[in-house]
Amino acid sequence: MDDSDYYPGVLDAVMEQVRSHIGEGRVADYIPELADVDPDEFGFSIATVDGGMYSTGDQARTRFSMQSITKVFTLALVMRGHAGSDVWKRVHREPSGNAFNSLHQLEFENGVPRNPMINPGALIVTDQLLSDTGDAVGELRKLLCEETGDPDLHTDNLVAESESRSGDRNRALAYLMASFGNIRNPVPEVLDHYFRQCSITVSCEELARAGLFLARRGRRADGSELLSVSDTRRILAVMLTCGTYDAAGEFAYRVGIPCKSGVGGGILAVVPGRCTVAAWGPGLDAKGNSVTAALALEAFTDVTGCSVF
Amino acid sequence: MDDSDYYPGVLDAVMEQVRSHIGEGRVADYIPELADVDPDEFGFSIATVDGGMYSTGDQARTRFSMQSITKVFTLALVMRGHAGSDVWKRVHREPSGNAFNSLHQLEFENGVPRNPMINPGALIVTDQLLSDTGDAVGELRKLLCEETGDPDLHTDNLVAESESRSGDRNRALAYLMASFGNIRNPVPEVLDHYFRQCSITVSCEELARAGLFLARRGRRADGSELLSVSDTRRILAVMLTCGTYDAAGEFAYRVGIPCKSGVGGGILAVVPGRCTVAAWGPGLDAKGNSVTAALALEAFTDVTGCSVF
Amino acid sequence: MDDSDYYPGVLDAVMEQVRSHIGEGRVADYIPELADVDPDEFGFSIATVDGGMYSTGDQARTRFSMQSITKVFTLALVMRGHAGSDVWKRVHREPSGNAFNSLHQLEFENGVPRNPMINPGALIVTDQLLSDTGDAVGELRKLLCEETGDPDLHTDNLVAESESRSGDRNRALAYLMASFGNIRNPVPEVLDHYFRQCSITVSCEELARAGLFLARRGRRADGSELLSVSDTRRILAVMLTCGTYDAAGEFAYRVGIPCKSGVGGGILAVVPGRCTVAAWGPGLDAKGNSVTAALALEAFTDVTGCSVF
Amino acid sequence: MDDSDYYPGVLDAVMEQVRSHIGEGRVADYIPELADVDPDEFGFSIATVDGGMYSTGDQARTRFSMQSITKVFTLALVMRGHAGSDVWKRVHREPSGNAFNSLHQLEFENGVPRNPMINPGALIVTDQLLSDTGDAVGELRKLLCEETGDPDLHTDNLVAESESRSGDRNRALAYLMASFGNIRNPVPEVLDHYFRQCSITVSCEELARAGLFLARRGRRADGSELLSVSDTRRILAVMLTCGTYDAAGEFAYRVGIPCKSGVGGGILAVVPGRCTVAAWGPGLDAKGNSVTAALALEAFTDVTGCSVF
Repeated sequence: MDDSDYYPGVLDAVMEQVRSHIGEGRVADYIPELADVDPDEFGFSIATVDGGMYSTGDQARTRFSMQSITKVFTLALVMRGHAGSDVWKRVHREPSGNAFNSLHQLEFENGVPRNPMINPGALIVTDQLLSDTGDAVGELRKLLCEETGDPDLHTDNLVAESESRSGDRNRALAYLMASFGNIRNPVPEVLDHYFRQCSITVSCEELARAGLFLARRGRRADGSELLSVSDTRRILAVMLTCGTYDAAGEFAYRVGIPCKSGVGGGILAVVPGRCTVAAWGPGLDAKGNSVTAALALEAFTDVTGCSVF
Repeated sequence: MDDSDYYPGVLDAVMEQVRSHIGEGRVADYIPELADVDPDEFGFSIATVDGGMYSTGDQARTRFSMQSITKVFTLALVMRGHAGSDVWKRVHREPSGNAFNSLHQLEFENGVPRNPMINPGALIVTDQLLSDTGDAVGELRKLLCEETGDPDLHTDNLVAESESRSGDRNRALAYLMASFGNIRNPVPEVLDHYFRQCSITVSCEELARAGLFLARRGRRADGSELLSVSDTRRILAVMLTCGTYDAAGEFAYRVGIPCKSGVGGGILAVVPGRCTVAAWGPGLDAKGNSVTAALALEAFTDVTGCSVF
Repeated sequence: MDDSDYYPGVLDAVMEQVRSHIGEGRVADYIPELADVDPDEFGFSIATVDGGMYSTGDQARTRFSMQSITKVFTLALVMRGHAGSDVWKRVHREPSGNAFNSLHQLEFENGVPRNPMINPGALIVTDQLLSDTGDAVGELRKLLCEETGDPDLHTDNLVAESESRSGDRNRALAYLMASFGNIRNPVPEVLDHYFRQCSITVSCEELARAGLFLARRGRRADGSELLSVSDTRRILAVMLTCGTYDAAGEFAYRVGIPCKSGVGGGILAVVPGRCTVAAWGPGLDAKGNSVTAALALEAFTDVTGCSVF
Repeated sequence: MDDSDYYPGVLDAVMEQVRSHIGEGRVADYIPELADVDPDEFGFSIATVDGGMYSTGDQARTRFSMQSITKVFTLALVMRGHAGSDVWKRVHREPSGNAFNSLHQLEFENGVPRNPMINPGALIVTDQLLSDTGDAVGELRKLLCEETGDPDLHTDNLVAESESRSGDRNRALAYLMASFGNIRNPVPEVLDHYFRQCSITVSCEELARAGLFLARRGRRADGSELLSVSDTRRILAVMLTCGTYDAAGEFAYRVGIPCKSGVGGGILAVVPGRCTVAAWGPGLDAKGNSVTAALALEAFTDVTGCSVF
């Protein structure tokens, strides 16, 4: 059986599981642009390493706010070449056991964040990318455009402005790290890039395609190497252990493949060597992960048996 | 190439990496029986799902104290049948972001431990196993004897007495959980079983064989089912995200397969569907994991490419 | 105007303030003996350094459970002679900023409690008193009997047994300190003395009389010295900064004299050089202090102007 | 014996105690202007409510950086009139049990600081004073000038600029509170006023005179009321329980009168109804309080017996 027979059946099984839950959860409401998203939207796309794209849900081509999913891509960008080794002196790679925007662990651990998938760690990565390239959000946008083949992917400026307006918690995190000497660029500049990164919008199909380098052991769409095989594995390890806020253990247990979620309701998942999966539903559970996207991924690994365990 | 050609080469590559590090790290010294172990000992065994056993190191058949590695086996025992569902109301399955014997997270989270791989979580599991069977340490010993085929595996009573004498931290954890109503049997009885479980001794070969049900998707040595396929996956997910104290992220990143370590210096690792690996070296790093066993496992996944990522 | 004219007017003013609040608050309910106390009871007594006793409220001679108020007396007993110097190596004298039975600060601060007015600090004091005298509860009872002139003051054994039955949190605290080497006697023995100390019952009149040595700069009822002038001042400083759980700042602000409260609903207060005040009402506020006793003390310092500030 | 005979003897006794310790401790070194202060400087002044001024030490008229001592004065300014009631909804008045610039308690307690004597609490007070008056630092300067009779007291601009440059921790605290909605003015403006307040310089004689309203039950130098008697008492209660960072218990125990210290090495103390004392020595102990100023105050209360206890 080839993929073009196989995946449509998987998609049906996923929709079967998800359908009755569409609309569940609570849409993020800290900024109006997210609060206004229709809670009934849902999209789901599988992109295979050999070029297949299989989608279901009415909104697989509707764009949503990437938010924390960008953390995987900016991490990949700072790990290119030898830069990667440096960033690990500034951020650990252990699960945090705390909410994504918690300060107290950061305080006890002298301004070195637990991992690059929580906000303070991602701020370190953005700061590093800014030092490495001079334009963090620009580099991210370039990568996303090149991998998807869509030159039009961009920051939603209204979202970015709202993020900035409601961003005092992230400012507190950044200044706390700065007080420990762990931020190198001016804090307002780092935050500006961070907020604009988070506000890039993509569809499920675009997101699945953009992340394929993680399933291809580090190879980009054009065949060139973005990351070495072992660095790619390491990013997947960080995703699995830290990628879904304080529910990483639960996702490993229920879904069993590396995932990264965002409060926009999207989740990117990777089956190493095989495919990526992007799911989107705006309603979030108590830990900030999309209810329907999580259910869809759980159904996906149940049906395909592709848990890494 | 069949396994009998393949694994000897793997063992050579592992020893190549480890040899110059033997004796590194700091032997656990909180009880005399552990402090007196020769820091230069090292053993390494691979047990394959089709019955192969490949060992290296001079002490692959020397017994050592299982300590926290027992946490995987007692968890498996309480997950048999329907009992499993109940235990997850009493212990979460998230990484802790803290040391294995930390109290403060337990206090903030109302006596419900973060996961069954840290001490308080394992005390819950022992308490549950005691309620389920009436003899927690007996059930564990029975499982280990049956899976290894060695009826002689047993608790080292001197170690168990020393554990009890130095066990005030574990008493504090247990009474704290009891104060939240999350311990059902008398605390001294739970601790007695817990200390005797931790004090069971095994060799690398025995440990690798005992853990094979995890590589066999839940099937025991005699072919019967100990755990369902999905429950087996879930234990492996808990091991990967929580099995090596506050270094789970580091192990996922460097080793990339589910592991469970103990302060006796042993580590059990699982390659799902294929084999288990047991490594032992008494010298520990700052986070309580064996230096040489960790290096050996890292070399093993490098050589075999069997990271789950 | 002499005291016999003055204090009756003070008592009237106090009752005026308190009357409409009698019955407010929530009676401690963690053990049946406390839960069963009539919430409408109230007593208030002033004992002056020159022998006067002025009481109001219907229950000024009704006995209630001393609970944490005993912490002041056991501290005084370990500070007699040169023993005092030693205890300050085992317990600090800073406010805790946490609930009376919190563990996490104790964990971060290596088993040395913040002050002797919270449970772990009082356990240290009991342990020290046990080492110093061989009978901690006996020494406390002896002091109370001698100061009040009533040889009959004693532990309520039903309360002590209930305290022990519900005492797992205190066991956790004691074993945590023991794990840091900061408990010298067997933990069960220390707890037994601690629970029996807390369960001694006194009336307001007895309590006010028993505490007079604190108002007399360390002199006992028979004129002998229990504490030096400076050690007496130090106990009063500890009471003011730490004596009312996590409301010490609020008490200093509202009442303005050194106080020690207990969950039995009693509060002992001291006006240095002048008098002691004992107030009792079983209904507690959210921080564990008696609602009516606190109001009575606030009225007392308002009327008399005897705030230390 | 009148004051003009009495206080010179007190000063001699104080110098006797302090002399051999001059130069001890560690000068604050987070900004160059403080790091460059001569560690051997020392000044000590007593200002009595009836106009006396008694000084010792070679530097009683040398100006130093007020730093956190300003927290008492800004608190008094927001408590004038009815404004005071409002500020207590935004800041508690309990000891913190933590360092002066700690974030984690602030995080757990939803952005409401423990008390106005630690940095986050003082930022709230500055924010309130800014809302009340439009010019927080101007109001403070005006009060200090009027109470001392010296129109020239002012901010050291070099210090203020250095404070701002090294002020990331305070920025983190302010933005964290802003994220909970507990800062009303723009954070940069609040910080600007805060840094300029802290950078005002005074001598011991000026500081003692400026604080006399606290010893005069709220009356200013010109006889008008700054604070009511009860609000004055309340500020003294807050000073005693919270005024010396995480050493408030120690100061209450050793010194026994309300004190407020600053990292510039100054301490202001108040004997209610009688006098104020200002001491200055730049060398700090591990908790951030001046070694010689603390010793001088301890000697002062020993000699005069004016502990509040």
